[in-house]
Amino acid sequence: MAKRSFPLSKVYGLLEPGPVTLVTTAFRGRTNVMAMSWQTMLEFEPPLVACVVSNRNFSFELLRSSRECVINIPTVELAKEVVRCGNTSGRKVDKLGALGLTAVPAAQVGAPLLEECWASLECKVVDTRMVAKYCLFVLEVVKAWVDRSRKDPRTLHHRGRGRFMVAGETISLPSRAK
Amino acid sequence: MAKRSFPLSKVYGLLEPGPVTLVTTAFRGRTNVMAMSWQTMLEFEPPLVACVVSNRNFSFELLRSSRECVINIPTVELAKEVVRCGNTSGRKVDKLGALGLTAVPAAQVGAPLLEECWASLECKVVDTRMVAKYCLFVLEVVKAWVDRSRKDPRTLHHRGRGRFMVAGETISLPSRAK
Repeated sequence: MAKRSFPLSKVYGLLEPGPVTLVTTAFRGRTNVMAMSWQTMLEFEPPLVACVVSNRNFSFELLRSSRECVINIPTVELAKEVVRCGNTSGRKVDKLGALGLTAVPAAQVGAPLLEECWASLECKVVDTRMVAKYCLFVLEVVKAWVDRSRKDPRTLHHRGRGRFMVAGETISLPSRAK
Repeated sequence: MAKRSFPLSKVYGLLEPGPVTLVTTAFRGRTNVMAMSWQTMLEFEPPLVACVVSNRNFSFELLRSSRECVINIPTVELAKEVVRCGNTSGRKVDKLGALGLTAVPAAQVGAPLLEECWASLECKVVDTRMVAKYCLFVLEVVKAWVDRSRKDPRTLHHRGRGRFMVAGETISLPSRAK
């Protein structure tokens, strides 16, 4: 795997730009993957993430039962897999196998890292009080992996109905912001 | 103003890609603007948004008191203003004036639209149960404005410490996703 360990204090910089993610879950021998765009950082360190996983998705059941997942960040090379992932349910098929994605064991959670993705964030569910009303889970990132050889990764950003903005150039301005 | 009314059912496509936003607030004659990246969609329609506004920000007080705001979406032409906005507090200065941004009256909330931004979403606070713990507000978008003449707007996406990814090309794939 090309990804290496990455400091938790810098995780916010991976999710703040709003990439489409591929979330893996596992529970009692079943593994699944779903495409997600509805996530935001909640806290810098330890990094907390709020994300919406619809209760119509098979992943909802796996996430709620296992209380763990991995948020993987794909780049434009995986655009077709991202769309196919969003178009099929894992309830009856092995989606990871069907998509040709490679599962790599994670360090601290049961769900797998996806080898083909640029970054992978191992997460534990830490707050479920907003699940009943909004399907909103609060996650803590407990371990992060990034392929740091890839500068300015061309992440995907969903504009709706299969239209994706592909990350363009990065500009840098003097800022006191974190 | 170049922006026109925009259907609430399509608002998710504006925020899903993860743009930096400029949030305006107003209460008892004080108006402010802050840069924000920590937001996510919660529901398609009516569009609900979850966003983090730190209680260290002057905007936190205005938002909590007025229970209204406007989420404005700037593009790369406003990059300097976005950084300056993040680097200064509105507690003692009129930030809108200092930044040279033009306030336009909104239709349904007291906070102003920013004329220079590509899109503006008038919002009302509908749930504050996560404010004490996470500074997380749940907003309902009650009116949306977009300059539809601008295709593939070059929104800004924060990577941390003043580095911004600028929105690149948009690709389209056959998808059954919303």
